[in-house]
Amino acid sequence: MKARVIVTLKTGVLDPQGKAIEGALASLGVDGIASVRQGKVFDVELATADNASAEAALKQACEKLLANTVIENYRIETGV
Amino acid sequence: MKARVIVTLKTGVLDPQGKAIEGALASLGVDGIASVRQGKVFDVELATADNASAEAALKQACEKLLANTVIENYRIETGV
Repeated sequence: MKARVIVTLKTGVLDPQGKAIEGALASLGVDGIASVRQGKVFDVELATADNASAEAALKQACEKLLANTVIENYRIETGV
Repeated sequence: MKARVIVTLKTGVLDPQGKAIEGALASLGVDGIASVRQGKVFDVELATADNASAEAALKQACEKLLANTVIENYRIETGV
């Protein structure tokens, strides 16, 4: 089955990359952008078709590798 | 208003970062992961409350800066 994991910075954590994008968009003449925060997305193909075991494997993957849980939140979407 | 932009590699484009994550997950003992592809996510705060003009601004931002449309697809989700 397919799943998607979205990793974003926690609120309050400084995002210099997002700030740089804001500045670049302003100088490129794209108006109306108030703020940008960048995160990561992982499109995962799982061997199992079972929702619960897929979520368990993805939670383990996030905790161990994909997200730094000190400064990042992660969200798992199965069945995308 | 808030919006989210998801930028992913097009099918067929090699993703060495995703391959490295697959290998790392296998050596960390996370089972059941068949493949991983990494992308980027941008959480954008827009000055406008109008859906159409927000989408127009985000499309412009993607074409000009956020996505390399030769190798990447982008998807705009408004009202997240």
